[in-house]
Amino acid sequence: MKNFISVKDVTDIEALLSKALHIKHNPLEYTHIGKNKTIGLLFMNPSLRTRMSTQRAAYNLGMNVMVINLNKDNWQLEFENGAVMNGTGSEHIKEAAGVISQYCDIVGLRSFPGLIDRNKDYNEDIFNSFLINLTIPLVSLESATLHPLQSFADIITIKENFNGNKTPKVVLSWAPHIKPLPQAVSNSFAEWALASEFDFVITHPEGYELNKKFTNGATITHNQEEALKDADFVYVKSWSSYSDYGTMPEVKTDWLLNKKKMSLSNNARIMHCLPVRRNVELTDELIDDPSCSLIMQQAGNRVVSAQTILTEILSSIQ
Amino acid sequence: MKNFISVKDVTDIEALLSKALHIKHNPLEYTHIGKNKTIGLLFMNPSLRTRMSTQRAAYNLGMNVMVINLNKDNWQLEFENGAVMNGTGSEHIKEAAGVISQYCDIVGLRSFPGLIDRNKDYNEDIFNSFLINLTIPLVSLESATLHPLQSFADIITIKENFNGNKTPKVVLSWAPHIKPLPQAVSNSFAEWALASEFDFVITHPEGYELNKKFTNGATITHNQEEALKDADFVYVKSWSSYSDYGTMPEVKTDWLLNKKKMSLSNNARIMHCLPVRRNVELTDELIDDPSCSLIMQQAGNRVVSAQTILTEILSSIQ
Amino acid sequence: MKNFISVKDVTDIEALLSKALHIKHNPLEYTHIGKNKTIGLLFMNPSLRTRMSTQRAAYNLGMNVMVINLNKDNWQLEFENGAVMNGTGSEHIKEAAGVISQYCDIVGLRSFPGLIDRNKDYNEDIFNSFLINLTIPLVSLESATLHPLQSFADIITIKENFNGNKTPKVVLSWAPHIKPLPQAVSNSFAEWALASEFDFVITHPEGYELNKKFTNGATITHNQEEALKDADFVYVKSWSSYSDYGTMPEVKTDWLLNKKKMSLSNNARIMHCLPVRRNVELTDELIDDPSCSLIMQQAGNRVVSAQTILTEILSSIQ
Repeated sequence: MKNFISVKDVTDIEALLSKALHIKHNPLEYTHIGKNKTIGLLFMNPSLRTRMSTQRAAYNLGMNVMVINLNKDNWQLEFENGAVMNGTGSEHIKEAAGVISQYCDIVGLRSFPGLIDRNKDYNEDIFNSFLINLTIPLVSLESATLHPLQSFADIITIKENFNGNKTPKVVLSWAPHIKPLPQAVSNSFAEWALASEFDFVITHPEGYELNKKFTNGATITHNQEEALKDADFVYVKSWSSYSDYGTMPEVKTDWLLNKKKMSLSNNARIMHCLPVRRNVELTDELIDDPSCSLIMQQAGNRVVSAQTILTEILSSIQ
Repeated sequence: MKNFISVKDVTDIEALLSKALHIKHNPLEYTHIGKNKTIGLLFMNPSLRTRMSTQRAAYNLGMNVMVINLNKDNWQLEFENGAVMNGTGSEHIKEAAGVISQYCDIVGLRSFPGLIDRNKDYNEDIFNSFLINLTIPLVSLESATLHPLQSFADIITIKENFNGNKTPKVVLSWAPHIKPLPQAVSNSFAEWALASEFDFVITHPEGYELNKKFTNGATITHNQEEALKDADFVYVKSWSSYSDYGTMPEVKTDWLLNKKKMSLSNNARIMHCLPVRRNVELTDELIDDPSCSLIMQQAGNRVVSAQTILTEILSSIQ
Repeated sequence: MKNFISVKDVTDIEALLSKALHIKHNPLEYTHIGKNKTIGLLFMNPSLRTRMSTQRAAYNLGMNVMVINLNKDNWQLEFENGAVMNGTGSEHIKEAAGVISQYCDIVGLRSFPGLIDRNKDYNEDIFNSFLINLTIPLVSLESATLHPLQSFADIITIKENFNGNKTPKVVLSWAPHIKPLPQAVSNSFAEWALASEFDFVITHPEGYELNKKFTNGATITHNQEEALKDADFVYVKSWSSYSDYGTMPEVKTDWLLNKKKMSLSNNARIMHCLPVRRNVELTDELIDDPSCSLIMQQAGNRVVSAQTILTEILSSIQ
């Protein structure tokens, strides 16, 4: 594996899942493969969970870690070719990526969408600029449109918790929130769920349709209760509108997930990528019921997900 | 040792002191016991000395370190049970502590008092919430009311510098300052001095009485000069009022410690936890006199203190 | 080597260059010499390139790294002897340096000039205060007037790219910029170029004369084209005025370096310390021409430079 930007970088999901489960139970088996290697974690937006889990994964592989927080105050990048740099951008991506490529062996990058200019966000200009100019592998720590390390952790969690001999029914259920959120986690989960050939259903209010590029093949319904019927896993997530980009169209019905709604499911397990707004997105009774919630297990699998991907990449650059 | 929040977590101070002195002279004897273990240092308030000394201690034990700076801008925690999280708190302590417990092996936490609501501060709500929700050991890097790693370093320093065959007379002497400070260092030193069975005297102006819970057993006087008589060690520290909580009641007499006042003592050694306001709390002539000041030695013992505690905790989680 | 503040700390540049080239080709030969040693990187101003390259260098030597970002908000130092510290300075340099000396084995320090008070900047008060009060080696990560780790990387790069049997002609060519920059990189490069006995020419517009203390022995001209004639290396750098301190005197002619001007040279290689303002300081066509630009190689040599210096210092404190 050269880069890890989306599910398309994975050639065999089943094989990767097997590796992940092996690593989960033998976290310190590969402490030598990252020895004397350094990962640079580059944050254009804040991160705590992703930073900590990736850092821990790197330590478990014997790597060194450098955290680089970029923001407008300290290092604004110029992305345009041929720019006369007499403005706010103090360093061109060509130099930035070239330098980082010499100081690190792998780079992780986080860059959220602006949620204002849809074309710009969905073109993934920033990630693509880095990809063009880096000479070392790039791991997405969440881009404008995708969050593959999260999705892989999600799929690991489903794998660990499904014993049935049928295809699991997995529902992505939109949730209310106090502010407009990116579509990245939802887009990415859809991609991975479809690549995993789950019986995959997305339910959301009108106006919250995701980009079809990521959801093609999924069953989509505005009827939350219908979606929940016979579900094995319910992934709760809020996102803002893609069509009326970055807004929160008014929702007149109640989308808070609770125990009563979940009773329609097949004793489904609840999933959420965190942070979760309790009693806004879903109720305490669901989160705090260990026979229902997989949320902590998902969070724990973030280390497994990152460690598996780093192992794959390290193997390719030895 | 499971957690380190106060002197009450220590079963045998003398044994712990012996261990500390052994570690001080053999700092790299235990570089294996922290191998592949990670400590997360969680700062809800800034820290330099505590962060650096704890980080160095962890490195001396072969540990990995993750520093997590929390503040209102990036990650505001919700502590209330049952809260409908539609406000500023973006993550509940239940999830935060649950996640950290999976990414780290030990967590250190710093959280200062607000100095506004005494009940809230003295209930140690934040530390107690973490204790309830963490599944890994917690080390205090200074709480609202206590600073045990500092106090243990202080007691190590006294141990190293007292050769008498009597009980040492140790005086905690209030100092002027330009702003109201927490009582944590003073409360904590009092606890440790009393547990060490020193002849322990606290002197401060009227209005600066500490919480009796921590000082019970100490001799308390408003007469600084009387307190200094025959003292072996004088610990200089400013704190704000506990009774008129967080304020600085007017002080009409001169509490700046100087050489003349110190001449009343038994050639006492001066202690201070740093940072010190020179010529406001005590004079240059005292700080700069190596036959008097133990301040640098105390600061150095912060590494010894942290390393001893981490060793104890690591032993319990192997 | 005890400290590394300027070229004066180097006794034999040629020998140091040989060591650097050996380290460049054997970066992991000395992973043992920094084992259980900690470098503290102290930033009074932001840094990305210097931090990352020094951090990588330290990792290559097996060291631990602590990054300490100082700023007015979290830790303002008092430098005056005898100060009554009732103002903004919360800790005296005596204590700060004394404490850091106990928590680290080597300290790196960055402190930019204010560009307002020339005497203050050129006295290097901050660096000198640290030097007086530290008991461990100090490495400059760029001071008010010098940037020796950069200059050493520059000299390594010239060494790698000059095969002639004559003395290379090296030109430091002033460049336009959108804001006044320190003279540190230019002063420092001048010192190192002169110590290396290059045929060294500085060209800049009127009003941009550097302090003669650093340029004594160089040929200085206001005629950029004349300077470029037969040049082997052209170092492009902007700096603000030394005589009318920190200002940017008006420049009526065009100082942007381009291919046409470079045609006067002896197929000279272009150098720049980064970050570079493309098409303001020099043109894309020069930066993007690998047969001309040495800029990326220079940046890569920042790790080599730092690693060589740390190796020298570590050897002296074993």
